[in-house]
Amino acid sequence: MAGQESLGEFELIARYLAPLASSVPGAYGLRDDAAIIRAPAGHDIVVTTDAMIEGVHFLKSDGAQRIARKLLRVNLSDLAAKGAEPIGYQLVLGLPVPLDEAWLEAFTAGLAMDQKAFNCPLHGGDTTRSPSGITLAITAFGAVPTGQMLRRGGAVAGDDLYVTGSIGDAALGLEAKLNGRLFSSAAAMVFDARLHLPSPRLAFGAGLRNLAHAAMDISDGLVQDVGHIAAASGLRAVLNADSVPLSQAARQALADAPELLSVILGGGDDYELVFSAPPAAADRLRDLSKLTRLNVTKIGYLEPGHGVGVLDSAGRPVQLEHGGFQHFAGPA
Amino acid sequence: MAGQESLGEFELIARYLAPLASSVPGAYGLRDDAAIIRAPAGHDIVVTTDAMIEGVHFLKSDGAQRIARKLLRVNLSDLAAKGAEPIGYQLVLGLPVPLDEAWLEAFTAGLAMDQKAFNCPLHGGDTTRSPSGITLAITAFGAVPTGQMLRRGGAVAGDDLYVTGSIGDAALGLEAKLNGRLFSSAAAMVFDARLHLPSPRLAFGAGLRNLAHAAMDISDGLVQDVGHIAAASGLRAVLNADSVPLSQAARQALADAPELLSVILGGGDDYELVFSAPPAAADRLRDLSKLTRLNVTKIGYLEPGHGVGVLDSAGRPVQLEHGGFQHFAGPA
Repeated sequence: MAGQESLGEFELIARYLAPLASSVPGAYGLRDDAAIIRAPAGHDIVVTTDAMIEGVHFLKSDGAQRIARKLLRVNLSDLAAKGAEPIGYQLVLGLPVPLDEAWLEAFTAGLAMDQKAFNCPLHGGDTTRSPSGITLAITAFGAVPTGQMLRRGGAVAGDDLYVTGSIGDAALGLEAKLNGRLFSSAAAMVFDARLHLPSPRLAFGAGLRNLAHAAMDISDGLVQDVGHIAAASGLRAVLNADSVPLSQAARQALADAPELLSVILGGGDDYELVFSAPPAAADRLRDLSKLTRLNVTKIGYLEPGHGVGVLDSAGRPVQLEHGGFQHFAGPA
Repeated sequence: MAGQESLGEFELIARYLAPLASSVPGAYGLRDDAAIIRAPAGHDIVVTTDAMIEGVHFLKSDGAQRIARKLLRVNLSDLAAKGAEPIGYQLVLGLPVPLDEAWLEAFTAGLAMDQKAFNCPLHGGDTTRSPSGITLAITAFGAVPTGQMLRRGGAVAGDDLYVTGSIGDAALGLEAKLNGRLFSSAAAMVFDARLHLPSPRLAFGAGLRNLAHAAMDISDGLVQDVGHIAAASGLRAVLNADSVPLSQAARQALADAPELLSVILGGGDDYELVFSAPPAAADRLRDLSKLTRLNVTKIGYLEPGHGVGVLDSAGRPVQLEHGGFQHFAGPA
């Protein structure tokens, strides 16, 4: 960096990005116009795109490494939800000038760490100047055996509804970050970590092939995303709010402030899997949970109709204030 | 639009984007987390990404329809340069709020027009709010018979260098737009059209498979891009400036202002193909040119060494001021 007035586009690519593609013969060292994606024989290629824009999805103060890891992980979470195993990704990297090389170094270190952990190397992309903020997007590719991609629209009346892991920590982290809500320092750390570093449930998702009827990852909020499965499947979902799995920290926060239920069920960024499966799948789901060391909890069921009903354990409707995240929704 | 205070993300997708994906079964109406890309048996999938950011690559006043068409076409040009035939694309659409629906309607109309013309439908993507300007990116997929993707690095000493079409019009258009350079009104129209609406050379690129040794499209300027082929192939390129094909309008502009040679050879946005082929390919290239109704011109050759030499017809070195486009290059 010393003595470097202006890092050019080609030096940026050679120094920071090409090492991320070095294991991929079809990426040609990022020195060609395009890359080749290869899937194993008998597989479909699944593709998904998620963008993250400074001031909308993150603040620069979140830290370059965490931003990079979240960017890759939210895309991997979509692959997980479709039962796909990662192949690789394309990166859009829009940066203000002059380039902040320390930021870039930490950002690419974050990508390096997680692309290795999840076996999903860089294949190509585009770097550009961005006049007023960091602009990021990843298009990720995965492989599923032909015809076995998990869909939102495959649920059947009588299916049970399940989620992996626990719900609401990330939304509580956002509540602390944006609205200044105070939690115990231990809880605040849990929530912040879940907000900034989701865990793509890849092994669990791959295990759901031929087991779940419908699946997606929870990014916009549990209730809204359950609604997407219901709508795509032409069914009504019934959710038991009391059975939604919470972390110990979230349980405590909810006990202290019951109005947080809306945040927990309606917030987003969980990146857990929500899926439907027939009652006969229960044993195999328990086995999959053990094998992947990931809790899975039945939270409801699907029936004829449309929409989402949220009930408590006594069967009474639960009122929620928060409808879930929409990118363009403004004040009413 | 009337009576609509705030168009939500899901309505935006359903109204403006889903129709662009209606012909693709694997796009699931843009209502799932991911799409399936399918290539014909015996083909590799080629992937390329190009972003366009307001204030860097375009101005909003360029017109939504032209911006959309250029965005798709610059990606298709990369597929053309690799000998690939389009399969489809993922779109990143970052828009300021409140949404400008008239803009969005014209933008998606532009995409509709060109994705039909080039047989490259939308498969999926991500829509988001963008705080301070329109942010666009496309990741496009194409198919080439396995192992036949055209590369930058395949040139052989003794190859001839060729370009399709004519060079410099778009750079002269940019010179008029950014630097206020005046041309005749007929010439200005030609240059402006070439700047805003490149023509991806898909049929020609497909014809170059098994014929060209190396190929790329010209986006950063002829001299710089020829340099990329030379560097990737470990060779030196020799370019005859006088044989570079110019449109009648560019020829006239150059006659009036000889210093424009640097702009023509060093500017960018041509989106023609530059490629190397052995002398024995000359007849087949002539046939391909006739078949595709696209001029092809020999502009130089490759020899052992490195770098690019630009000579005039008498073999004297030509000095150029303009090194080609780099996204992060600032003033020296």
